[in-house]
Order: sequence, then C-alpha cells, then structure tokens
Amino acid sequence: MRIALLGGTGDIGEGLALRWAYDTDHDVIVGSREADRAAAKADEYETELDSRGVDVDIAGLANDEAAARADVVVLAVPAYHLADTIEAVADEVDENTIFVSPAVGMKRDEDGFHYNRPGAGSVTELAAGAAPDDVPVVGAFHNLPAARLANLDADLGIDTVVVGDDEDAVDFVSELAGDIEGLRPVDGGPLANAAEIEAITPLLINVAKYNDGMHDLGVEFR
Amino acid sequence: MRIALLGGTGDIGEGLALRWAYDTDHDVIVGSREADRAAAKADEYETELDSRGVDVDIAGLANDEAAARADVVVLAVPAYHLADTIEAVADEVDENTIFVSPAVGMKRDEDGFHYNRPGAGSVTELAAGAAPDDVPVVGAFHNLPAARLANLDADLGIDTVVVGDDEDAVDFVSELAGDIEGLRPVDGGPLANAAEIEAITPLLINVAKYNDGMHDLGVEFR
Repeated sequence: MRIALLGGTGDIGEGLALRWAYDTDHDVIVGSREADRAAAKADEYETELDSRGVDVDIAGLANDEAAARADVVVLAVPAYHLADTIEAVADEVDENTIFVSPAVGMKRDEDGFHYNRPGAGSVTELAAGAAPDDVPVVGAFHNLPAARLANLDADLGIDTVVVGDDEDAVDFVSELAGDIEGLRPVDGGPLANAAEIEAITPLLINVAKYNDGMHDLGVEFR
Repeated sequence: MRIALLGGTGDIGEGLALRWAYDTDHDVIVGSREADRAAAKADEYETELDSRGVDVDIAGLANDEAAARADVVVLAVPAYHLADTIEAVADEVDENTIFVSPAVGMKRDEDGFHYNRPGAGSVTELAAGAAPDDVPVVGAFHNLPAARLANLDADLGIDTVVVGDDEDAVDFVSELAGDIEGLRPVDGGPLANAAEIEAITPLLINVAKYNDGMHDLGVEFR
C-alpha cells in the first residue's frame, strides 16, 4: 500500500510516517507544500530508520505529487489548512483514493484548550465536504500523542477511533491503524460521530497541563 | 464524610452509592424526589452489601433531607432535572457543602449519540450557574460505565476527570473518587474545561454500539 502524508513534515505526520515505515511494508510518501522540505524530511526519516536497521526508501514530494502516487492520503495538516490542502490535490485523486482526516480545531484561553467545533459539525466532516464527491473520507488518528508516536522506543498501548460513511474505506484505514504496533483501531460509526472524538484532543492537553507526570497522552477505552 | 446521592436510585447513583459503601467508611445517603423510593433503594443496597459481608446503614431520604445531612451532594440526575433538583435543595446547603455534577446532556439520531452542549458551556457549568453562590460545584464522574460501577465484582481500572474553580473542593472530590478501588481521579482544571469531558460519554456509547465485545466502557488516559 502507498500512503501519502500531506503535512508529513509536521508532528503527527512525522509520527505516522516513522511508525508505518518501521512497523509495516507500506510505502510511505512525505508530502509538503514545498517539495524541498518534504525531501529533506524524508531523508531525515530514512536516517532515523537506518539507525534502527531498517532500510527503506521514503519519497518526499510536493503535496499534489504525493497524493497522485498514493492509495491513501492522510491530511496531516492543521484544520485551517485542510480545505486548501484538499483543493491543491483534488485533481490527483479519484474513487480509488481514500482521504484520512486526523485534524482537530482547537482554541486556547487561560483555562486550557477547547474544542473549536466548525460549522460542518466536525473537522472530519469539513474535510468530507471539501473532498471530491467520489473520494471517501475517513476520520482517524485524531487523538494521538505526537512526540510519543514519533519516538520509536516509546510504547503506545492506545486506541484510535475510526469514523466514516464508506465501510470499505473505514475497514481499510482501520487495518492501516492496526498495523502500527500498540495502536488499536476502534469503530466509531459514521462521520456524524466525529465531533466527540475530535474533542478529546484538547482534553488530553488539559490533563497533561494539570497533572504532574502525565504528558503526551493518548486514550484507551476499557 | 457524609455523601448524599441525589437521584441515588438511578444507575450512576446506584453505582457510586454501592462503591463508596463497599470501599470506604463514608456515610452514604440515597436521595430521591420520593422519600419512599429512596428508602426502598437504600434497603436494596444494604442487602447487596450485606450479601458481601459488609454491614452498613444507608439512609434513604427525600432529596432536600438528604442534602441537609451531607458534606458532599452528588447531583446524579439527568441534565434536564439538574436545575430543579438544585432549586429543591438550595435552602439546605451552605458554604460547607460541595455539589458534584456528573450529568451529561446527549441527543440521539440514527448514527449514534451526540453531545448536546448547553448554552452555559457544559452541564457542569449549568449546575454552577444554578447553585447558590457560596456552594462550590465540582464536575466529576461524567464518563463512568454505570452497570460496571454497580457490579462490585467488576474491575474498573478507569479514570475520572475532575474539574472545578475551587481548588479545595476539587481536591476533596478527587480524594473521594480515589477512594473507589480502580478509579483514578485526574485533574481537568477549571469548570470551563468541562465540555470536552462530558462529550466523551456519547462517544463511549457509540464505541459500544459499533464494536463487538466492547460495552459498558470507561476511559483511561495513558
């Protein structure tokens, strides 16, 4: 499988790129608005993996070229860049591509972080609204601890809730999630259920802020 | 410590009453709008505990009498009964009482359950707005699996996020939470952070709906 991580130079993109390259045989493609930056990051990931005895090629390309080559396109960009990122790659994808949306909108005040729910209902639904009609959108990887994900020495032992209206696409992305060691995919139902998943991310940041010894948190349902 | 569970005949109230009576030396008082029903439920809980070798007195009283006797008043009622429950007991409480709000507002459609965020920002803040000014309100116990809580044979191994603007009250309620075996209190910061905690409850119901073998779920931050 070929997985493109648009915004693959950012923190969640880095973690997913490293984990898929380390734990699986999937081809990982790093996308960025600037091809040079994507290529530099891809080299950095290759070096990190090489130091662990894993010899893989990771491509680094402009977002549109990365999307054109991929079966699964992870939109690992901030919520406010989601619509223009999708627009920039829309001509390169078709009904055989799956978009995956991990983005969460947040706002911050003196008390902590808060979920900034968009008018579409959730950021995942905003992505679905912006995507070409024939490209299924799946929400996943919303609540992952970025630094822990990118640290291949760190155990995960956490869940990710996967939502979508196209069951085949949900199954597909759930398998990709489950391919990462220590990450358990959990079915959250249709896209309409995404908001409550996204809202966990600011909560995890607040819990880390107010509790000594708790940081870079994920969540397990049990 | 004397803990009154208003709505203590309902599912979360039952679980908390049984756990505190079983795991601790705190005095548990069951409150209900009807004193008879409270007394019947209190008897039922005593019988359950007696069958496990625990001999305790659990009082069953009308909500106002229950609140009058308690140091901590848990408002274990549905969100739409919160304001009138507080009003009914407001004359019986003072600055030495702590209100605890575990209620969550939800709505349901064909996709699943969704968080029904009130205009106050959260149900916990709605409780704070309705409470007498001198009575601190703490949010806690929002995401507990009711049936598992009420089954004293079941292990918990889950977290509850505690929020409030009065730090002493938060510490107090956190201790009461930690007194329940297998329940870990986690500090969520001020009341303004309650919405993201409350939103987990409909998500837990959705996860149970869409995943075989997952039911009556709680959450652990890790």
